Amino acid sequence: MSQLFKRLSSTINIKPLPSKTHLHRVLPDSSFPAGYALTGLHAGVKKKSGVLDLAIIISTSKHPTSAAACFTRNAFKAAPVVVSDEILSRNGGRARGLVVNSGCANAVTGRQGLEDAWAMVNETDKLLPHSTSSQSHNTLVMSTGVIGQRLPIQSIIKGIQSQASADSTLASDFAAWERAAKAFMTTDTFPKLRSRSFEIRGTKYRIAGMDKGAGMIHPNMGPASTLHATLLGCILTDAAISPPSLQNALTYAMDRSFNCISVDGEMSTNDTVLVLANGAAAPDQVEIDEVTDKEGFEIFKRELTAFAAELAQLVVRDGEGATKFVTVNVKGAPTYEDAHRIASRISTSALVKTALYGEDANWGRVLSATGSVPLSGLDPQKVSVSFLPSDGSAALPVLVNGEPENVDEGRAKEILSLEDFGICVELGAGMEEATYWTCDFSYEYVRINGDYRS
Amino acid sequence: MSQLFKRLSSTINIKPLPSKTHLHRVLPDSSFPAGYALTGLHAGVKKKSGVLDLAIIISTSKHPTSAAACFTRNAFKAAPVVVSDEILSRNGGRARGLVVNSGCANAVTGRQGLEDAWAMVNETDKLLPHSTSSQSHNTLVMSTGVIGQRLPIQSIIKGIQSQASADSTLASDFAAWERAAKAFMTTDTFPKLRSRSFEIRGTKYRIAGMDKGAGMIHPNMGPASTLHATLLGCILTDAAISPPSLQNALTYAMDRSFNCISVDGEMSTNDTVLVLANGAAAPDQVEIDEVTDKEGFEIFKRELTAFAAELAQLVVRDGEGATKFVTVNVKGAPTYEDAHRIASRISTSALVKTALYGEDANWGRVLSATGSVPLSGLDPQKVSVSFLPSDGSAALPVLVNGEPENVDEGRAKEILSLEDFGICVELGAGMEEATYWTCDFSYEYVRINGDYRS
Repeated sequence: MSQLFKRLSSTINIKPLPSKTHLHRVLPDSSFPAGYALTGLHAGVKKKSGVLDLAIIISTSKHPTSAAACFTRNAFKAAPVVVSDEILSRNGGRARGLVVNSGCANAVTGRQGLEDAWAMVNETDKLLPHSTSSQSHNTLVMSTGVIGQRLPIQSIIKGIQSQASADSTLASDFAAWERAAKAFMTTDTFPKLRSRSFEIRGTKYRIAGMDKGAGMIHPNMGPASTLHATLLGCILTDAAISPPSLQNALTYAMDRSFNCISVDGEMSTNDTVLVLANGAAAPDQVEIDEVTDKEGFEIFKRELTAFAAELAQLVVRDGEGATKFVTVNVKGAPTYEDAHRIASRISTSALVKTALYGEDANWGRVLSATGSVPLSGLDPQKVSVSFLPSDGSAALPVLVNGEPENVDEGRAKEILSLEDFGICVELGAGMEEATYWTCDFSYEYVRINGDYRS
Repeated sequence: MSQLFKRLSSTINIKPLPSKTHLHRVLPDSSFPAGYALTGLHAGVKKKSGVLDLAIIISTSKHPTSAAACFTRNAFKAAPVVVSDEILSRNGGRARGLVVNSGCANAVTGRQGLEDAWAMVNETDKLLPHSTSSQSHNTLVMSTGVIGQRLPIQSIIKGIQSQASADSTLASDFAAWERAAKAFMTTDTFPKLRSRSFEIRGTKYRIAGMDKGAGMIHPNMGPASTLHATLLGCILTDAAISPPSLQNALTYAMDRSFNCISVDGEMSTNDTVLVLANGAAAPDQVEIDEVTDKEGFEIFKRELTAFAAELAQLVVRDGEGATKFVTVNVKGAPTYEDAHRIASRISTSALVKTALYGEDANWGRVLSATGSVPLSGLDPQKVSVSFLPSDGSAALPVLVNGEPENVDEGRAKEILSLEDFGICVELGAGMEEATYWTCDFSYEYVRINGDYRS
């Protein structure tokens, strides 16, 4: 550049990032669903030796395994999204294997990218128990990482083949689940692995799963749709549920979990959340179906939704450069969609997010973001805004019925210096509400994304 | 916070910001339109002594002065927006004065805010020549700065009154125009003042104006609408044009200038661009009107659009923390609205903008942003992306008909290290195109907005 430069002030106050490692959980082996074998290994997609970049998950259950997925709605679907979508619809919602690589998204890679994704599927199919020589594919595939670069497919194939040998590390203990979760990671700072159990009519089921962020996170996923993003999630349960009911439960859960988070407002080409249900907890039971077993289905749907929300929130807590975890609650909207749209807008506002980073109770930015969403019939004199501390102390109203409060700035600073807090916007225009989870926008976000590829 | 911290790497490579001061222009007195007196002064809205924070602009022309404006579409209109809108409609598009303060937006200030805005209007009305004691108001008002705080109205009134005395600094030379432009500034690093001349049938007219950014910039303005933002612009000409034609010309120009820029994707509560046309260049001429003088109107509209684009681009060049000026061109869309929506999405993507800051040719992010906008009938195999250098050298295709090129990374780095360059996306889905101007997302943006109020 042929221009004069002035040095940026060297006194930039860079706030230390809170460590996220305490969010990594060691879980008892018994907390995981039965009938799954997993591993994570270094196949060589990532340059650094030893870093896990390939996860393999297979259902070993004798019961048929149902599979459902929600994919990104981005117009440029990555190859693994296209392939997984096709397999799911060919198989009528059945699949028993999953292969995942991190480090390269296999997105916008043309015909070669599709061939590579199919090669991963074919090779993993061979690891499945009761494998036959039929032409049908039973493995789904996910990829995350840089867009527009080809996979090192030979290294990946070798990695998959290594699991067919005596050296296979496929196992069912915590260490195996953790390896798989680690192989999902890109800029994540800890492996996101959780488990949960629930009962339906006295039978105990388990659900466990893993996901990864940490940037390009503002998913908008639906069943077999036309979008894409860099959020990957995988949920595994030993309950038995019919494929259509599993898909309906997942779609419901997505709208109340992964579709309510934002790190940076970006919807990726690869976003996929999938769920497998292998019936291994009680192999002789018939599958839950929402038509024939409404009660069982409702319990399953509720548990899946709560678990998906837990996994989704982990992504926000580990958002690129995040130092805050902020719950945005929009109430009093005419419809859920209106509330969701406004909560989304607040959660993605660069000005709101930099103010959160600066611990500045700049509620004017919250209001400005709210008002930028067209909503007919909104009366500014009925709108209220408050900050909600997470420590159980009293909420702080900053705007009440359109009139600014005389805010105690010391108290505001106290709330905003917490790692967790909430923002509540009451629109006074209806009865519906929506909740979004977001994080702040920091120097570290710029650093991570200013030079991601190098 | 009760948590462990790890220090952020101290090796963050903070790129020096390019100085913007070379964009400040000293203009000849003769380049400004006739019949305007202006000044800028320190009224005390901003704490720092001597910093200009109040601009006063009055038309001294004997010809009636037409006025037109486009206001933000934010639901929470600031008081000055409500008041100016009301005056313009009461007066049928006539106004001769303008008072502007920076440092406080007078937004979300309830009933008191409206009273304060009216008080500014009343006091400035007294400065207008040929002022009568009639009840009608002839002054428009704009404010920019922090939301939710009251104006120090007594200080502002005293500032306006000072211009009624012998000490008045109202004048017509460059220094007076510059003072006014400086009083518009908030986080702007230079006063944005430009002028231009044009001819209609042998008569020479002048047009001059000023505007300010530099954050909360993603305007969406229309005539007498329901929104708001922190972009203020004021365009003054000595041409004579009827009020409805002036409004139509401004609305047309806005859609091709201020409504095509983004600094941070934020639409504010105060965004206003207004234009005054006082006929002082040729006081005896009749006003241009699009019905009776199509030729004159078309020339005026074209000149106003070009001038508005020049002013709008200055805001992007001085965007908060900006080190790049990037022209985003989306071609081959079914409609102009589709092209505009996609160009806007690319221009506001945090991942695209941090990559621009990092001079990283991460075109996958451009494509991902493109694909996140729903567009029926888009065929990924017809989409192409290229980077366009501003130095006249060859464009660099990175994606051609859906297939990634084997990109020369050295050449890509060369283009992205320029301060000015372009991104072109060809959709292959129609004949329409749109252009957007945006900047990058830097550490400095986070610094400025992480603690704006202190």
